[in-house]
Amino acid sequence: MRSISFNLLNENNGARLGKIITPRGVIDTPAFMPVGTAATVKAMYVDQVKDCGSQILLGNTYHLMIRPGTQRIIEAGGLHQFMNCNLPILTDSGGFQVMSLSKLTKITEDGVIFNSHLDGKKFFLTPEESIDVQLKLNSDIVLVFDDCPKYSFDKNKIIESMNLSLRWAKRSKDKFANQNSKWLFGIVQGGVFSDLRRECLNKLIDIGFDGYAIGGLAVGEKQREMFDVLDCVKDLMPKDKPHYLMGVGTPEDILGAVKRGIDMFDCVLPTRSGRTGLAFTWKGRVNIRNSKYSKDQTPLDDSIDCPASRLYSKNYLNHLVNSNEILGSMLLTWHNIAFYQDLMKKIRKSIEENRFDEFYKKSLAMLVNEN
Amino acid sequence: MRSISFNLLNENNGARLGKIITPRGVIDTPAFMPVGTAATVKAMYVDQVKDCGSQILLGNTYHLMIRPGTQRIIEAGGLHQFMNCNLPILTDSGGFQVMSLSKLTKITEDGVIFNSHLDGKKFFLTPEESIDVQLKLNSDIVLVFDDCPKYSFDKNKIIESMNLSLRWAKRSKDKFANQNSKWLFGIVQGGVFSDLRRECLNKLIDIGFDGYAIGGLAVGEKQREMFDVLDCVKDLMPKDKPHYLMGVGTPEDILGAVKRGIDMFDCVLPTRSGRTGLAFTWKGRVNIRNSKYSKDQTPLDDSIDCPASRLYSKNYLNHLVNSNEILGSMLLTWHNIAFYQDLMKKIRKSIEENRFDEFYKKSLAMLVNEN
Repeated sequence: MRSISFNLLNENNGARLGKIITPRGVIDTPAFMPVGTAATVKAMYVDQVKDCGSQILLGNTYHLMIRPGTQRIIEAGGLHQFMNCNLPILTDSGGFQVMSLSKLTKITEDGVIFNSHLDGKKFFLTPEESIDVQLKLNSDIVLVFDDCPKYSFDKNKIIESMNLSLRWAKRSKDKFANQNSKWLFGIVQGGVFSDLRRECLNKLIDIGFDGYAIGGLAVGEKQREMFDVLDCVKDLMPKDKPHYLMGVGTPEDILGAVKRGIDMFDCVLPTRSGRTGLAFTWKGRVNIRNSKYSKDQTPLDDSIDCPASRLYSKNYLNHLVNSNEILGSMLLTWHNIAFYQDLMKKIRKSIEENRFDEFYKKSLAMLVNEN
Repeated sequence: MRSISFNLLNENNGARLGKIITPRGVIDTPAFMPVGTAATVKAMYVDQVKDCGSQILLGNTYHLMIRPGTQRIIEAGGLHQFMNCNLPILTDSGGFQVMSLSKLTKITEDGVIFNSHLDGKKFFLTPEESIDVQLKLNSDIVLVFDDCPKYSFDKNKIIESMNLSLRWAKRSKDKFANQNSKWLFGIVQGGVFSDLRRECLNKLIDIGFDGYAIGGLAVGEKQREMFDVLDCVKDLMPKDKPHYLMGVGTPEDILGAVKRGIDMFDCVLPTRSGRTGLAFTWKGRVNIRNSKYSKDQTPLDDSIDCPASRLYSKNYLNHLVNSNEILGSMLLTWHNIAFYQDLMKKIRKSIEENRFDEFYKKSLAMLVNEN
């Protein structure tokens, strides 16, 4: 009997309500995972991330292995201790960052040779090495190492890459072996090609994973193309396992993906936007740099139970952000994470009460305003 | 009967224990005021500043009047509401920043014409205007507008500047008029010349102020010169009024100044150092960027009752600071303010228990280590 499990609690017009139980705590799904790239959710204390309702964080194997390096995290007693976090942590495998960040990447059957984007130092990452690093970080949910092709309509290229990812998925599983309290997720590739996506998913199911992630999206495709990918796989995704859409997305993306059976999300959008002055609210997006906010004494969104959302005027936030004050990044990031978790909480409640479709329509209408 | 008052509670070998009572709360002295230059103590939430034991903040008239501008703070209901702070706030008058930051300054009998260091916009600041702005900000402790000469041994220049400051001090007092719940402090100038310092102080006493600040220091002089200035005025400073040493300083400076009868301090050192990776601890200074800390799993100083001091390893902090993560600035600033307030608390306790000298010697020995 493993100490980590998933229960599907309700389904409502395609949307799924669930609960992941881990030794570090419960994760209610659909769940949003704030991104803690370099062992920190940028500009936030872990306690704030947690108090906003986050039940799991994401860490980046690529970033952590190049800085501070796996060894320093091992010496600290693992990633949770290193960053003083008692929430479960999911780590991605590094495949996406090797493609998007590093220089002079060389892909072989064995793995990937790449140069760090920080100092050019050479690294060699294989499926076995990626899993080994993730286990050393003490990640609770480990991802297989995959090849992430750039956005492309060249089907032969995508097939070749997908097949490599499938062989790497098998090697990842072999390396992961049996873990009582950890999970290993497979990653569905196949670009924008429905047949490839389905083929990839079926082959991953044959190997057998604890959850299934949809990868290779959030790389520049349109929302419609992303939803098409979800539509073509949703009926094949194992019902008793979590479905994770990697790197997505806007509040509207999340609503549309939940409708298509997705249980887990991660995205840098709320944190990165917080640092550049964009706030998500239930009345739409607020670009706080806009000079009109210098006369606005109202808070960002007093319907959200977070000090950053309720206690500071847009006048003040506009001043902080325009003055490049760190507190501006701190408050907007905090608010955005609180907003995202408020969205997830309301999504879960609406599924529980079998009124997700109504909530979905009402929310979309509220969220699309550009203030 | 005014609603703001000072009580001297004890004296011990020159050091003074006191209590300032204001409508916004009590300030135990000797007190350290964290600097909230642009309506924010950089990289900290006001609640953290308060939880560290801070009972008053400092705001900068110069910075606030050029950005966001007095009008926006008036519209927010004053500086406390604008920055969501219920602590008392002392504002300096702008004299120091006009000298140190602005470009193309022209000093006349009437006031100072200067160009903003941000965008070159022209401002005209007079004693009356400075007091008017401070009252509009709703500052609790207002400072007279003074001329701050650069560090100089040219006595005639210093005499001329001091006399101008004295005329401006009188005009500041006239403008301030009667305020029930606010204080106006005079500023002692006179450079490194003992006779001038004493003359200036006596003339300020003749005008009559609620407290006396020592200005024109922290401009490049040696600690010995600063202490000499304090020594030459300490017996002339009115016993029943607070004594404020502006812009000072290191923990060692503060200890030496308390010994010379100073009750109030402000300095950017703990906050600025926090953002550059320097931590103050009871075992001395810690330059967290030093690579040796990458192997150090101990916290900065677990004798200090602050999460930033106790819960994060030097290994982690070294990683954050070397990665330019905002959380690094947040944690080190938080720790440094907690350390400074711990120092002030222990100073007060030692005066209360008539053992300041012993504490002073013990502390100096502990603080001088460079780690």
